[in-house]
Amino acid sequence: MPSGERRWNGWGRAGESFPVPAAARAWLAARLGEGDPLPAVDEAAIAVPPARRLPPLPVPVATDAATRLRHACGQSFPDLVALRTGRIEAFPDAVCTPADGDGVVALLRAAAAEGVVVIPRGGGTSVVGGVTVRRESRPVAVVSLAALHGLGELDRASLLATFGAGTLGPEVEDALAPHGLRLGHEPQSFEFSSVGGWVATRSAGQRSTGVGKIDDLLAAVEVATASGPWRIPAQPASAAGPDPRRLLLGSEGRFGVITAATLRVRPRPEAEDGEVVLLPGWSAGLDLCRAMLRRGLRLEVLRLSDPAETGFATALVEMSPLRSRVSRLLFGLPRYRRGCLLLLGWAGPAQEVTVARQEAARLWRAARGLGLGRSGWRRWRAERFRHPYLRDELLSLGWGVDTLETAAPWARLGTLSAAVPAAITDAAAALGVRAATLCHLSHAYRDGASLYFTFFWPLRRGEESAQWGALKAAATNALLAAGGTLSHHHGVGTMHAPWIGAELGAPGVAAFDALSRALDPAGTLNPAVIHPRPAGEGGA
Amino acid sequence: MPSGERRWNGWGRAGESFPVPAAARAWLAARLGEGDPLPAVDEAAIAVPPARRLPPLPVPVATDAATRLRHACGQSFPDLVALRTGRIEAFPDAVCTPADGDGVVALLRAAAAEGVVVIPRGGGTSVVGGVTVRRESRPVAVVSLAALHGLGELDRASLLATFGAGTLGPEVEDALAPHGLRLGHEPQSFEFSSVGGWVATRSAGQRSTGVGKIDDLLAAVEVATASGPWRIPAQPASAAGPDPRRLLLGSEGRFGVITAATLRVRPRPEAEDGEVVLLPGWSAGLDLCRAMLRRGLRLEVLRLSDPAETGFATALVEMSPLRSRVSRLLFGLPRYRRGCLLLLGWAGPAQEVTVARQEAARLWRAARGLGLGRSGWRRWRAERFRHPYLRDELLSLGWGVDTLETAAPWARLGTLSAAVPAAITDAAAALGVRAATLCHLSHAYRDGASLYFTFFWPLRRGEESAQWGALKAAATNALLAAGGTLSHHHGVGTMHAPWIGAELGAPGVAAFDALSRALDPAGTLNPAVIHPRPAGEGGA
Repeated sequence: MPSGERRWNGWGRAGESFPVPAAARAWLAARLGEGDPLPAVDEAAIAVPPARRLPPLPVPVATDAATRLRHACGQSFPDLVALRTGRIEAFPDAVCTPADGDGVVALLRAAAAEGVVVIPRGGGTSVVGGVTVRRESRPVAVVSLAALHGLGELDRASLLATFGAGTLGPEVEDALAPHGLRLGHEPQSFEFSSVGGWVATRSAGQRSTGVGKIDDLLAAVEVATASGPWRIPAQPASAAGPDPRRLLLGSEGRFGVITAATLRVRPRPEAEDGEVVLLPGWSAGLDLCRAMLRRGLRLEVLRLSDPAETGFATALVEMSPLRSRVSRLLFGLPRYRRGCLLLLGWAGPAQEVTVARQEAARLWRAARGLGLGRSGWRRWRAERFRHPYLRDELLSLGWGVDTLETAAPWARLGTLSAAVPAAITDAAAALGVRAATLCHLSHAYRDGASLYFTFFWPLRRGEESAQWGALKAAATNALLAAGGTLSHHHGVGTMHAPWIGAELGAPGVAAFDALSRALDPAGTLNPAVIHPRPAGEGGA
Repeated sequence: MPSGERRWNGWGRAGESFPVPAAARAWLAARLGEGDPLPAVDEAAIAVPPARRLPPLPVPVATDAATRLRHACGQSFPDLVALRTGRIEAFPDAVCTPADGDGVVALLRAAAAEGVVVIPRGGGTSVVGGVTVRRESRPVAVVSLAALHGLGELDRASLLATFGAGTLGPEVEDALAPHGLRLGHEPQSFEFSSVGGWVATRSAGQRSTGVGKIDDLLAAVEVATASGPWRIPAQPASAAGPDPRRLLLGSEGRFGVITAATLRVRPRPEAEDGEVVLLPGWSAGLDLCRAMLRRGLRLEVLRLSDPAETGFATALVEMSPLRSRVSRLLFGLPRYRRGCLLLLGWAGPAQEVTVARQEAARLWRAARGLGLGRSGWRRWRAERFRHPYLRDELLSLGWGVDTLETAAPWARLGTLSAAVPAAITDAAAALGVRAATLCHLSHAYRDGASLYFTFFWPLRRGEESAQWGALKAAATNALLAAGGTLSHHHGVGTMHAPWIGAELGAPGVAAFDALSRALDPAGTLNPAVIHPRPAGEGGA
């Protein structure tokens, strides 16, 4: 497990970084032109206002400026701009660190009685404003779940492992490994995101095509509410009314604070393998992925990059002059001029991995793919958690970058994958800048797949958040119009909240509000996410 | 698709039956002694009281006695006793047959405005009182969804098929077959149950170990509410708040009337295969099933019968004298004296079916199983939908029979499978009778499985429902105490409603009530199921 202090104003650990290779800088400069670097202010320059007086809370409470600063924001683009410029909308008045689930219940009781807003925080990695503190008339306490961590009960016969909500990804796998088990849930945020956060946001991991989303992995959950703990026991399946686990999945702290989760784990695989294939184009790639899923091919990792992402990914790799020449040669061939990289990964019994790889090869050869071997797979495995560091580097170079993601049935993916980049390009033009958008498919299902977009633009000083807001809104409108879901695994947070009605329909929003009022009558819990409480309700 | 009129007072079609073989009668008589036959009264002998006057409803309405009788009950044991004796608690005042989803919305609007209770009815096969009409101070309309049937949109690229809620199982498969597709959802009630009913009750099919429960197959759903239609579009997955589809799954008509569902279908399998294996005992059988799931073996059907069910199933088969001798010889061997039959089925690409069968054989041979070949599989395939007819025959012979089912993690299945028969035996003794309980495992998951119990007892005239109630309550208390879920695929209905608090916890019940009030403010919809509205609320 990596160690070192978390960076207070950006991704990951202080000291870690992902320097942008010259080729990638050139790739961006050619498409975007130069932007205005966004330097990061020193922590000392950030004026943290005094905390509002809080009623006594029955848990450990910190109110010092450094702790409050470190719990004010998540990892969204506006969060990063706020942290770099020091223009932070609001700070928590306190950061509470309960020792266990009972402590969280006691805290929620006191908060509900005293009119305190509570924002639950696991790893703090939300990229959609799910943990960002907003201006509130009531005092605000962030409840850090860091102390509720580690493996609790392990039912080896049933392959069920119970973790404290604050357990981070590497801790989960490190605790399971000595038992010959793994979870296999590896979101991009793996190193810093927590079990409770995964459940609260309906997270997906890079192996989700094989192991499923957290929705599929959650067997039991413990939730703190102001009226007491709510323990939903482990069941493999049930027909006893609507599944209460599914109310908590995606609830983003609005119905209670998840304090523990029992997850479906699996034996560590006997074998693991993977490779990279170059395909002639995006639409052939989509068809191939669809065919693999339709056929029920065993696959753990599936990722298809569009030509733009393929180009950028190639520019990100520091290559020897020889490899660089081979690469240019390859993409110079007429067949692969719009080439798309496909990443395939398998895990399981050795014989089955071999058979699955052979079956996949039959399909990709028929799609005129070119096998590039295992080295790309190994590089992806080694470097995949470093990519988020790029964002901070790019801001320093003058380029904004953000990601968004959706999912849709296969029949809509072609349109959707074209509509979002087009909307971003148009919105950028209206801002007087150029943008570039990358796309990849991941998390595939029999009936559809998730598309993930990364977009870049040149920053204009003082307009960073406004630029981002225009691009993000255009992309979101486009993806909803093309039949995509508002989010496949980032969640709603505050950022997607304006669109939740389009996603759920009026009865769905009414249902959400009714659940929030029933389970959090005082409106204590994370009130700005998903569908904010109407003004004047819940003590606001 | 079988044809012929539905039997008005029992399972299935008039004219169809499953005569009880002599060996099975002997098996029961030896264990239970003789009971009092429960003869069925003639339809003419049933006094259907006059319908209460209904306000004008904007859909076709029938109020004749024969139609009202045919929509008064489902297929629970108390329903059968009521229909056979003519002691029927209540009749609907009208049976409405809207032509489409808009008709259902119009009906719900009128019903909410006029204080009419609405009971949605698909195939009418609920065995837990989900469609049974109860005594109500308000007039009661059953809304039959029979006219909302057939295949609508078919998205072949995404493998998504939209069906009217009233579409029955055979219609689903018949509509898909010409496209080379299948759903594969085959509950015991397959011939008579409907798509909407499957969704409303979180149904599972006999192939669910391979194809999943209806929960996994539902991509989109259309629901009629009094405030308008609610259309939740098809998405392969999402993180946009709690999944609204999962609110409807298991809602049993309380939040709205499901009018259409889009289901995830799959290509028809290239090959299908199956076999029966005899295992030395129940606990070895459970371990073997667990090992197969843990290993991720491809399996479509998995059913393990305990020694009692194995004995009864053997007695149900009409055998030639030679086969009968072989069977006695087999079960006479010390190793198989407590033998358990295991049914295994596969479907998919031919090569994968072969490989999966070989892998399974390695495992069951190691568990000292004895392969009995494909004939048992073929017989199961041919006869499986005939078993429910047995119940009516047994009532005529003087024996009561009912089934109940649950699910739990693997670690609890041993205890659970012993606790339920013991509780039934004890409860029967308290009634002064003997009982016999069969058990099988089906619907297996990596973390657990469903257990299905069939129990028999000798009927005492006039006490049939009271006997049943005592046995059912004892079994339910035992399964909950042993950590099982209240139901794995039958649902809650009115029958399991007294226990719903134990299943969901107080916050879960509060959440359910809040949803019901938000989506059905007038308390129009099926108010007695899952968690009945408190008296005096919702116009009662």
